[in-house]
Amino acid sequence: MNIIKVSANSRTAAVAGAIAGVMREKHFAEVQSIGAGAINQAVKAIILARGYLVNDGIEIVCVPEFVDVEIDGKVRTAIKMTVTQRGEEATPQEEVEQEN
Amino acid sequence: MNIIKVSANSRTAAVAGAIAGVMREKHFAEVQSIGAGAINQAVKAIILARGYLVNDGIEIVCVPEFVDVEIDGKVRTAIKMTVTQRGEEATPQEEVEQEN
Repeated sequence: MNIIKVSANSRTAAVAGAIAGVMREKHFAEVQSIGAGAINQAVKAIILARGYLVNDGIEIVCVPEFVDVEIDGKVRTAIKMTVTQRGEEATPQEEVEQEN
Repeated sequence: MNIIKVSANSRTAAVAGAIAGVMREKHFAEVQSIGAGAINQAVKAIILARGYLVNDGIEIVCVPEFVDVEIDGKVRTAIKMTVTQRGEEATPQEEVEQEN
């Protein structure tokens, strides 16, 4: 499992580099953020990553969804952006885990 | 041109309804927002719209990009989320305009 966690203080270029690296290797990445500031950084990082990956012939699309995560014993609602290559189905989680 | 503009005060359910309506008609929608609060509402609205559209057999994906917009004579950077159906290419802008 390789979830890229983004906070409001994350540097977008660093997150974008992480997304691009995971996409090149697995053609599938998950970006998780909690709160407006973090979601803003996550979306901006995906835009940057998209630019990096277009040069490699990889065109990414993303699908946002709500996920419940537990932090310090409290359940919070995060937004998970699943990034995949256009035209490819999302890789099932099981398959990703087997690859590790 | 049917750009759905989202602010930090937009109600996510209303925006989601607009996205779902445009997607059912055109299989293509553009959601534009400026600032972290607005981008947060836009992403949440896309998640809700995704839920509405899955019931119609439409699975959406989105692609964010930066766009420059002029507001009151000042150029600002907005984030545009292009929403399309998974597996379909983004409809060229010209084609959308011809349909109107």
